[in-house]
Amino acid sequence: MKNYVLKGNICYSRSKDEICIVENGYVVCENGRSAGVYAVLPEVYAPFPCFNYEDRMIIPGLVDLHVHAPQYPFRGLGMDLELIDWLNTHTFVEEARYADLEYAGRAYEIFSEDLRNSETTRACIFGTIHSSATLLLMEKLEAAGLKAYVGRVNMDRNSPGYLCEESARKSAEDTEKWILDSQGFQHVRPILTPRFTPSCTDELLERLSGLRKKYGLPVQSHLSENLGEIEWVKELCPGTAFYGETYDRYGLFGSQGASIMAHCVHSGEAEMELMRKRGVFAAHCPESNVNLASGAAPVKRCLEKGIKTGLGTDIAAGSSLSVFKAMAMAIQCSKLRWRLYDQSLAPLTVEEVFYLATKGGGEFFGNVGSFEEGYAFDAVVMDDSSVRQPRRLKVRERLERLVYLSGECRMAAKFIDGRVIFREN
Amino acid sequence: MKNYVLKGNICYSRSKDEICIVENGYVVCENGRSAGVYAVLPEVYAPFPCFNYEDRMIIPGLVDLHVHAPQYPFRGLGMDLELIDWLNTHTFVEEARYADLEYAGRAYEIFSEDLRNSETTRACIFGTIHSSATLLLMEKLEAAGLKAYVGRVNMDRNSPGYLCEESARKSAEDTEKWILDSQGFQHVRPILTPRFTPSCTDELLERLSGLRKKYGLPVQSHLSENLGEIEWVKELCPGTAFYGETYDRYGLFGSQGASIMAHCVHSGEAEMELMRKRGVFAAHCPESNVNLASGAAPVKRCLEKGIKTGLGTDIAAGSSLSVFKAMAMAIQCSKLRWRLYDQSLAPLTVEEVFYLATKGGGEFFGNVGSFEEGYAFDAVVMDDSSVRQPRRLKVRERLERLVYLSGECRMAAKFIDGRVIFREN
Repeated sequence: MKNYVLKGNICYSRSKDEICIVENGYVVCENGRSAGVYAVLPEVYAPFPCFNYEDRMIIPGLVDLHVHAPQYPFRGLGMDLELIDWLNTHTFVEEARYADLEYAGRAYEIFSEDLRNSETTRACIFGTIHSSATLLLMEKLEAAGLKAYVGRVNMDRNSPGYLCEESARKSAEDTEKWILDSQGFQHVRPILTPRFTPSCTDELLERLSGLRKKYGLPVQSHLSENLGEIEWVKELCPGTAFYGETYDRYGLFGSQGASIMAHCVHSGEAEMELMRKRGVFAAHCPESNVNLASGAAPVKRCLEKGIKTGLGTDIAAGSSLSVFKAMAMAIQCSKLRWRLYDQSLAPLTVEEVFYLATKGGGEFFGNVGSFEEGYAFDAVVMDDSSVRQPRRLKVRERLERLVYLSGECRMAAKFIDGRVIFREN
Repeated sequence: MKNYVLKGNICYSRSKDEICIVENGYVVCENGRSAGVYAVLPEVYAPFPCFNYEDRMIIPGLVDLHVHAPQYPFRGLGMDLELIDWLNTHTFVEEARYADLEYAGRAYEIFSEDLRNSETTRACIFGTIHSSATLLLMEKLEAAGLKAYVGRVNMDRNSPGYLCEESARKSAEDTEKWILDSQGFQHVRPILTPRFTPSCTDELLERLSGLRKKYGLPVQSHLSENLGEIEWVKELCPGTAFYGETYDRYGLFGSQGASIMAHCVHSGEAEMELMRKRGVFAAHCPESNVNLASGAAPVKRCLEKGIKTGLGTDIAAGSSLSVFKAMAMAIQCSKLRWRLYDQSLAPLTVEEVFYLATKGGGEFFGNVGSFEEGYAFDAVVMDDSSVRQPRRLKVRERLERLVYLSGECRMAAKFIDGRVIFREN
């Protein structure tokens, strides 16, 4: 079923400055793409089946630009450390478990099911250094019908023995084999995933650069998250002016292909300017940045500068898969940043975070994250009737409330590329 | 039924520095009070009925020291303003609706049911200036079995005409009548509630001081929440050295009775010292302070100084009735405060926020908020089995996770003063 109509209160972004709302409107899916939003359904679509969601809210599927699947088992735990200590104490210990395919199967089954049951339609996902476990994750995501880029992680230095690849050559060879093994999926694609500069030798980055060119793959990594990390990168890469250059000098920073850099909490002007120039995506992960006391990213500046930007949940430094929660936290962090640190940058608006969570992050996948004509038909239907009200609210108010109270609401349906992932009626 | 035993994983605070955990333990309720926590049930309690909650988590009921019931209908909305503008734009307009008892009935029914279904066992609640609506709220809370202090709000200046009492005398007279009318409740008690200094004339505060002495009532109000508000209070009360003095000079700041002051975001040393000396409770409302961009309160300093401190959800500047959420936000705000503003004050720990949410705030009600012997038997049983795991976690880890993921967990039972409020089996 690729042609149908959804009826309900339709909200979507065209730009970061406005939310388009059509109450009791129609959004048309034609061959897996949006054929537009209408207050009155055009005659030509009358033959399409119509799913009437009545007073419910219909929005584009949410996009999670940064999430670590293997860390899902310890979300909400052990967040009393900063980045590097947190990695060594909790993260690497957990990720090492994925050498065991049986454990990986159990853990990734839970992750994939929960992601399917979330409002997220597309995600960029980190695995571990284990090719087999990462392929298993990809299988499960594919079976769940989700669109995702999934990365087998590379790390060949400054990592504990139990989670360190033996050489740059072996890491690259194993990665190439994994790339070839992961060609058969329909919805899930591989993405090159050097963990971050501290855990990747120059030789490894150079080899990954070769794979990137050979297979035309996108790249995801971490950038300027934590002050201690940034100092460490400076020591490790004395020839670079800023962190982003450590990726850029190996062609892993946009330009020749899409790149996502998670965090960018402490990115300076030069780094931001290179991101803009190279078309690098910033994945803003507000809850993670708070939980690891990394800071509050200047997201509004990214938007003002025209840097491509979206949101990430960053499990497990973020505790929840909910991109709605990331939206609320993005606003909240921007308010504390404004109050405590820098009154030159106004707090983020609901319009801006809705844009980031849909069209902003969606752009990494192409024409995704909006209901404008030609966009991939990713949609979720939210039922907020469980949040009882003594008076009627406007649709714009209900959308704002969804951001803050999504945990109290129910998803009634979810569509990706027009495919029905989940539907109540 | 006043004598029984609960079996499960029992967690409670004795102090801000430790969480006592007894796995597969017993907590005994005898005549509505705790008779202690045991790894092995003493023979003397063997005749008591035992509710076996198996692997579930049993914790003291949570205490909400600051929440505005009439603002519940617009939670999660309109938070793009700072305090004074937010009050004028959203809050006062909503509160004026409670002149209409029919509206108040509908709204307070929802509030009371949701509070009953939350993990909160005790709360200090603001109503509006409307005595009848406030009595209706008290009736509904009483019927729900909740323990609460409820305040009919006083405001006789700097308020819009539709929400301003005609004189200090009338405000005090109406308040006295309301006090007398609210004597018949068993679980719900009146609390004097001057909104905040900007909306109360000196004469009104003086009259409320008289009522306080006459009826021996506690007091709740707001203190040092927002920078603009604090400046305004300075202008309004030129003879005072700090905001707290504006209450203290009328005997409404602890000392002769219990007082709760919400926020204390910008309280200086002198104000804090007076709070400590007078035994004034600080109600820390982290989400509210973020949403209205008020700042991040120095909660740890309150604890270090020995100021009595608890948590508040502060609906509707806070979006959720969940005190678990307030716990998570308290940690998160303290981390951003540390990173962005003041590295002399370490972030709050899980131990500290658990204490604040239970025994810290509970102290306002007496021996409340712990399972130590003699404490009121307020308990909630949390079922976290919906958060699926590939491996078994420790109880301490699960408690930490409850703080962050409570929205994904289910409450299986709730007890107040030993009374069963809600029980699954």
